[in-house]
Amino acid sequence: MNLEQKLENLTTVISDAGKNADGSYTRLPMSAEYFRAASQLQTLMQDAGMNTSIDSVGNVHGLLAGTKPSKGTILTGSHLDTVKNGGLFDGALGIAAALLCVQMLRENNISLKHNLQITGFQGEEGSDLGGTFGSRSMMGLIPPISAEYEQILKQYGISYRNISDARADTSDMKCYLELHIEQGKILEDEQKSIGIVSGIVGITRYKITALGVSNHAGTTPMKLRSDALTAAAQLILYISELANSYSNHLVATVGQLTVYPGSVAVIPGKVEMTLEVRHMEQEVIDNFINKITDFASNITNAEFSFSELIKKPSVYCSEALKDKIRLSCEHFGMSFTELPSGAGHDGNAIGQRMPIGMIFVPSVNGLSHCKDEFTVWSDAVNGALVLYNTILEMDRED
Amino acid sequence: MNLEQKLENLTTVISDAGKNADGSYTRLPMSAEYFRAASQLQTLMQDAGMNTSIDSVGNVHGLLAGTKPSKGTILTGSHLDTVKNGGLFDGALGIAAALLCVQMLRENNISLKHNLQITGFQGEEGSDLGGTFGSRSMMGLIPPISAEYEQILKQYGISYRNISDARADTSDMKCYLELHIEQGKILEDEQKSIGIVSGIVGITRYKITALGVSNHAGTTPMKLRSDALTAAAQLILYISELANSYSNHLVATVGQLTVYPGSVAVIPGKVEMTLEVRHMEQEVIDNFINKITDFASNITNAEFSFSELIKKPSVYCSEALKDKIRLSCEHFGMSFTELPSGAGHDGNAIGQRMPIGMIFVPSVNGLSHCKDEFTVWSDAVNGALVLYNTILEMDRED
Repeated sequence: MNLEQKLENLTTVISDAGKNADGSYTRLPMSAEYFRAASQLQTLMQDAGMNTSIDSVGNVHGLLAGTKPSKGTILTGSHLDTVKNGGLFDGALGIAAALLCVQMLRENNISLKHNLQITGFQGEEGSDLGGTFGSRSMMGLIPPISAEYEQILKQYGISYRNISDARADTSDMKCYLELHIEQGKILEDEQKSIGIVSGIVGITRYKITALGVSNHAGTTPMKLRSDALTAAAQLILYISELANSYSNHLVATVGQLTVYPGSVAVIPGKVEMTLEVRHMEQEVIDNFINKITDFASNITNAEFSFSELIKKPSVYCSEALKDKIRLSCEHFGMSFTELPSGAGHDGNAIGQRMPIGMIFVPSVNGLSHCKDEFTVWSDAVNGALVLYNTILEMDRED
Repeated sequence: MNLEQKLENLTTVISDAGKNADGSYTRLPMSAEYFRAASQLQTLMQDAGMNTSIDSVGNVHGLLAGTKPSKGTILTGSHLDTVKNGGLFDGALGIAAALLCVQMLRENNISLKHNLQITGFQGEEGSDLGGTFGSRSMMGLIPPISAEYEQILKQYGISYRNISDARADTSDMKCYLELHIEQGKILEDEQKSIGIVSGIVGITRYKITALGVSNHAGTTPMKLRSDALTAAAQLILYISELANSYSNHLVATVGQLTVYPGSVAVIPGKVEMTLEVRHMEQEVIDNFINKITDFASNITNAEFSFSELIKKPSVYCSEALKDKIRLSCEHFGMSFTELPSGAGHDGNAIGQRMPIGMIFVPSVNGLSHCKDEFTVWSDAVNGALVLYNTILEMDRED
């Protein structure tokens, strides 16, 4: 088997539990499919010569002991769960690539000085547990006890005790490295093999309400209307135009919009919508929001109000790890570009405890979270080789 | 009692059944409250010296025999039902004004040559029976038998047989006159006492679909998006701007809008919305729609499709009746303006069988279909006087 075949084989075996008839994959957080996949992953790790365990929230760990374990542990991996009807690659590819690295070390008779730990994370995708559930548990980042959250945990058969038991001792962990599909089409568009992730963007979400006056659509002349939807449309266009005027990876999205009363013959009196802005720098996001609220205050036919829903800070990748990933790309003669991750990852949580580095490989047509999610296997192998070389480079360090 | 007190008294008694604790009124089509009001109206008609009947769908008729009945019948009235939690005036005022006219004829010892018929109509407001149910039954305009409609009738305890029994012989009916509240604020804005209705506007409704590409809101750069909501916003603004550029009572409304998938972190891939356009002339509506579809075809980030939902023709009021209403206004020295009715009325159906004329009185703040619906009683009396004089003018004709 060549590397492509090996990587495809590993990815397919890891993902086997949860494969649907239509070609999509469903391994929801804490589901039976997830735990079948966890057991399968343990077997694969053991076949690769690793000591394995499944922790109290379902993260799967494999450890390859180093020759100088006092130097610490290099952590790698990705998430083992998927969204409903997701694809083969999201999460699973990062775990498979890490396993391929272990196989390559063995085949090349290389022993690392550091311990190498692969973790398949529980519940990275959104659920009522909250996203990045497994990595947040492991990093000790789950918020204090609330009765509501306890009830949710109970439905999954676990408790706060299980979460605290899953907390890892991160004191000897040197760094976290993850290979992941881009889930966007920047690499494809720019025809680059590897994305060196600069960080994971911050996410700010607002609920925006436009208040106009609801009235009879037949008896109210145009000039006497205060149509909340027309007002909202002005703001939506401005949001899009303003975001397009930024050339620095800022994205802004109005994804939800509800019209009240929502009747064919009634002028909309109220519109509620969401605004989500993502960027690496909170200051850029805040300035963007300020421009939006300024513009809204000058729209005459409705009164706008803004309420913050979420303000999730960005996480920067380590400059040292980015450098080593870049050197690895150059070593193999692969093209690369630096880009932020617009999507969240386990690195959001893990980055609170140790330096992180992420390697993106191209997603065909930028598709993800669907059965058509695909990465050309030679591109995936490129990513695995960069991960392998970066691990070797890290291991050379003290 | 002066005229204002008499008119208020009649309106209040007619509306008594269905009065809610919060001051609103609910007499839904075919409801128990409706039939209690029908019985009460019969009593009022009898007190005014009329012969009365309730037909097989619940329209209430009062007949004042003329001295030369062979000259035919002048029909007047309005609807007796209300929307849920509607106001005191919508419908009831037109019936009360007609009854006041009969009282005035008697007090002034005037005998009309024509018969004068007052009808309180069943189910003018929208319901699963279809709007203007009573007047359509009376005019023989209910569509042919369908199993589905038969089932709806059955729930109300009636059948197609009842509908055909309710059909009136309209051969001797000379015209239909109705006083109604404006339900808009054109009269109030222009400070006019009386609205001479030019006709009831035609209504054309479309379902518009904007098809973009749904994608991850974090990983898809602005320049690679096909956001269906941003595209829809462009069209909504154009619709509003174009309608505002018409100075001839055209109104256009996007009242319903649904975003798919409607998730805070997903770029809208599809938007469905309704467009309703109202105007007296179908050609003006059709031209307006053409400009909208032209504009939509030039929006690049989504593919638009239009499907017609409703194309309800307008109904013109009779020039002769408009002249007599105008003369009546001038007779009393009342200010007036001619305007189309943006809302539907029983005149939609009745206008298929005979000339119609409508008199609007001002609605405070343009409010209707709510408990705050109000018309100043002196304004209401102005309308009743114009109705009275117009009946006298019609009676003078051969």
